[in-house]
Amino acid sequence: MNYDKIFDAAIDRLHTEGRYRVFIDILRNKGAYPNARCFHGHNGPKPITVWCSNDYLAMGQHPKVIEAMEEALHDVGAGSGGTRNIGGNTHYHIQLERELADLHGKEGALLFTSGYVSNDATLSTLAKLLPGCVIFSDELNHASMIAGIRNSGCEKRIFRHNDLEHLEELLAAEDPDVPKLIAFESVYSMDGDVAPVHAICDLSEEYNALTYVDEVHAVGMYGPRGGGITERDEAAHRIDIIEGTLGKAFGVMGGYVAADTRIIDCIRSYAPGFIFTTSLSPVLAAGVLASVRHLKSSSEERDAQHANANALKQAMKDRGLPVMDSTTHIVPLMVGDPVRAKKISDILLAEYGIYVQPINFPTVPRGTERLRFTPGPAHTESMMADLVDALAEIWDRLNLQVAEAA
Amino acid sequence: MNYDKIFDAAIDRLHTEGRYRVFIDILRNKGAYPNARCFHGHNGPKPITVWCSNDYLAMGQHPKVIEAMEEALHDVGAGSGGTRNIGGNTHYHIQLERELADLHGKEGALLFTSGYVSNDATLSTLAKLLPGCVIFSDELNHASMIAGIRNSGCEKRIFRHNDLEHLEELLAAEDPDVPKLIAFESVYSMDGDVAPVHAICDLSEEYNALTYVDEVHAVGMYGPRGGGITERDEAAHRIDIIEGTLGKAFGVMGGYVAADTRIIDCIRSYAPGFIFTTSLSPVLAAGVLASVRHLKSSSEERDAQHANANALKQAMKDRGLPVMDSTTHIVPLMVGDPVRAKKISDILLAEYGIYVQPINFPTVPRGTERLRFTPGPAHTESMMADLVDALAEIWDRLNLQVAEAA
Repeated sequence: MNYDKIFDAAIDRLHTEGRYRVFIDILRNKGAYPNARCFHGHNGPKPITVWCSNDYLAMGQHPKVIEAMEEALHDVGAGSGGTRNIGGNTHYHIQLERELADLHGKEGALLFTSGYVSNDATLSTLAKLLPGCVIFSDELNHASMIAGIRNSGCEKRIFRHNDLEHLEELLAAEDPDVPKLIAFESVYSMDGDVAPVHAICDLSEEYNALTYVDEVHAVGMYGPRGGGITERDEAAHRIDIIEGTLGKAFGVMGGYVAADTRIIDCIRSYAPGFIFTTSLSPVLAAGVLASVRHLKSSSEERDAQHANANALKQAMKDRGLPVMDSTTHIVPLMVGDPVRAKKISDILLAEYGIYVQPINFPTVPRGTERLRFTPGPAHTESMMADLVDALAEIWDRLNLQVAEAA
Repeated sequence: MNYDKIFDAAIDRLHTEGRYRVFIDILRNKGAYPNARCFHGHNGPKPITVWCSNDYLAMGQHPKVIEAMEEALHDVGAGSGGTRNIGGNTHYHIQLERELADLHGKEGALLFTSGYVSNDATLSTLAKLLPGCVIFSDELNHASMIAGIRNSGCEKRIFRHNDLEHLEELLAAEDPDVPKLIAFESVYSMDGDVAPVHAICDLSEEYNALTYVDEVHAVGMYGPRGGGITERDEAAHRIDIIEGTLGKAFGVMGGYVAADTRIIDCIRSYAPGFIFTTSLSPVLAAGVLASVRHLKSSSEERDAQHANANALKQAMKDRGLPVMDSTTHIVPLMVGDPVRAKKISDILLAEYGIYVQPINFPTVPRGTERLRFTPGPAHTESMMADLVDALAEIWDRLNLQVAEAA
């Protein structure tokens, strides 16, 4: 038994497949985002433009958010000091849960330290509470949902992505008396497509299944108050559990679920991933509270983001770049190979000061490696022109195919 | 299938057993902690003294921590905006990982969003990477370690708490060629006792097992630089993986592991709970960096905390209160019944403005329900006298046994 050899071999596999991840060391310039500084492989920080952040609306630098966090920092201090049950339940947490429940038109909400934990803890706990539960899971669900489903130990059925016929076939094959849960995302973040929410709810009603939707790439981004795709499509009341993040469009960190009081109380009382962990820093909770409140009343950021996303997609199409067929704010550019994706990303950073991370397996299926751009309201026309020019030059330099995925 | 009935029954079970948790709604007064305000069941906030926080050294309000967080907030903004791989790797994260690696004399460290996630993600990933791995787990290990072990899907052997003979018996019964991992805590937070670290390392060497120690209640608290029990006992070099939290003695939020580069790189590259989640807010990372650096060079807070813990234990003994036999900074007072524990806690809060949460199953075994006090350097002699007087009065009022666990 030589442990070192086993660990070395595990790392070697990643190098061989060209998917060993190198983290880029950056600091954003607050107030000037997407401008940032890059520390990696340079003598001192070098200015870059960030094109791959999930802080979609730049709320991480919004004056209201910064001010609220500063106030909390001075009022109550850095951390919560305990679990929600033991000393770590602050007034900020309670107010934020009320605000999030209201955002989704639900009776209650529950905070977690991350979106990952909210999916893992909620799905695994729900399924354990329902004897014999079968979970129906979209094949492209996020790793955190897959973790929660696996950790629940219950039976699962994977339905083909957004395929209603397949989902119905699987639902119909189960005993009507068995508890069922349909788990899916509203916006799939790597392809940028959207789930048919109402049609899934029709099936859930027909087959008496609970519905669980991950809205992490949609909250703050869609709907008149930022309640996500379920708000935009007026479907929130048909969904049993809506899950969201505080670390993307809301610009801070953390995760949550919103549902009726009964379900929230069960998760609160039974989920180890909620119970046995220090609660969110009150400083974060205060920042998110300001962010959610702002995006409930302001659509300016959403509108600017969507306009920029559409403009970038069009500019890429005009240059023959293989932009994927996204119907959302996400702009994925297909490459189809991990080594080439990394090479393009490296050239963009080193020669153009443009930062976009290559997306490899297991985040996307092998052979569909890509670059994923997230233009925000603060990306200017000139930044977009620079980006598209740079991409066109690199595509030409590396003899890459044009418009292969369009 | 009536989902509501199932959820209602789950909540009813908790009420019946007297262990339905009610969160107390508080805000600390920064700069005046352990003074705080309580919102629950009162008309407006009422002043209270917090006796159950895991912000053991009051670092959550230390001027250096607050200043560092404020600076980061203004320099880079509220959140990281992405996973460590995709846009969320900042210079603060890298500096903090170096600082934590140095704290434990290890080559590397890796940040997680919480101590819970660091245990869950690391244990489950390590065991999956080692084919046929068997994990040897102390029976009192924290819920997050149990989650990681269960989620790894590997074989496990539970050894009786701190029982070296039992551990050796289990190790000797396994095939020598099978990968082995011994997982334990240094300080057990509910009883306040300590693991025999060197003796466990002796066994790990004899049976060629990896060692994993959870130091969440010890980092910042023990050792000349706050490196935990493994630093105090000069055993860090004998441990393969040291896990810690940033949310207790360091006063902020987050978790980490420290180990050699090879192991860190494996966890970084393979753990879904690390890869697929938004990284710690740079504001938190900046605060922790200041906190760790301060506690590396200052023992003042540790010394004052230990002195107060000893004084409180002695004061409780002097009054015949059944304080448990803790050898650490934790002061547990045995009650032995969930309903009585809650009642004492309720009286303390309502009549005395003293906040200590009852600790019930599943945090501790049934029949060992208790109150758990965590005196910090900022608790004064007069606060301690008030606390002990209040407890003596309530013990008398409720006809509780004295010194039953002493």
